[in-house]
Amino acid sequence: MRHVISVIVENRPGVLARIASLFSRRGYNIDSLAVGITEDPDFSRVTLVGNGDDTIIEQIVKQLYKLIDTHKVIDLTKQNHIEREMALVKVTITSSTRSEVIEIVNIFRAKIIDVSEKNLTAEITGDQDKIVGFISLLKKFGINEIVRTGTVAIGRG
Amino acid sequence: MRHVISVIVENRPGVLARIASLFSRRGYNIDSLAVGITEDPDFSRVTLVGNGDDTIIEQIVKQLYKLIDTHKVIDLTKQNHIEREMALVKVTITSSTRSEVIEIVNIFRAKIIDVSEKNLTAEITGDQDKIVGFISLLKKFGINEIVRTGTVAIGRG
Repeated sequence: MRHVISVIVENRPGVLARIASLFSRRGYNIDSLAVGITEDPDFSRVTLVGNGDDTIIEQIVKQLYKLIDTHKVIDLTKQNHIEREMALVKVTITSSTRSEVIEIVNIFRAKIIDVSEKNLTAEITGDQDKIVGFISLLKKFGINEIVRTGTVAIGRG
Repeated sequence: MRHVISVIVENRPGVLARIASLFSRRGYNIDSLAVGITEDPDFSRVTLVGNGDDTIIEQIVKQLYKLIDTHKVIDLTKQNHIEREMALVKVTITSSTRSEVIEIVNIFRAKIIDVSEKNLTAEITGDQDKIVGFISLLKKFGINEIVRTGTVAIGRG
């Protein structure tokens, strides 16, 4: 099962390495990971997404609590929550494909953040499905680069 | 100096732990980190932001290349590039503050992604300054939760 886990940790060197090794020691591959500061700059929030056995995840969550730098662990999968991701996508354009690319960007309410003669870079936010859909529609034009933030999630209400 | 480093790595367990420990062993704190899959699903892109000594960063970049799972390391700081971050911000609202909060959301071209009687959650993208500005304007209403993706970056042109 897919899990979205949010971990609030003290913002200091080594914390991330310890969290990442907790997952890798169990052979649990992290699909996406995002680390950003929180409302309190002494703490960072790590949002992890991975697919794996529920019992392994339960073990990892327990282990996370044992790390002295861990403040809180939330398995958002069990709650009503919103997931969002951002992607920057650089697409090849020519004079004949430019307008079609811009049309797709507009349909997805993405933003053009850079254009040159040969490339257009768009910023898109949404859930994973939306981002995957956007990327697959642009594939035929030639994608030069994709930078994705990884999923972040927040509880509803 | 602030550094933005992009690392393309093979997408498998343990890689992230090795990268994170490379930084922490040198006492180099990672301010933000984002991991997402790339145009090739076998590879992930790790975008790291940190502040520190230039010579330490140079050493870390060299060490990163020695990790067998590393495909490419780019120090974007030295190139013309665009940085973007996404934040989800949950603000307290009351019947008397709701419209003011919505006004700020609109000025920053943020999107409302959830509303309840007591809370409003907005999604904002931009460079770090924009996100910090948005958060500081909302502070007086009471911020319940901030989830930030960490910075991602892409070369221009």
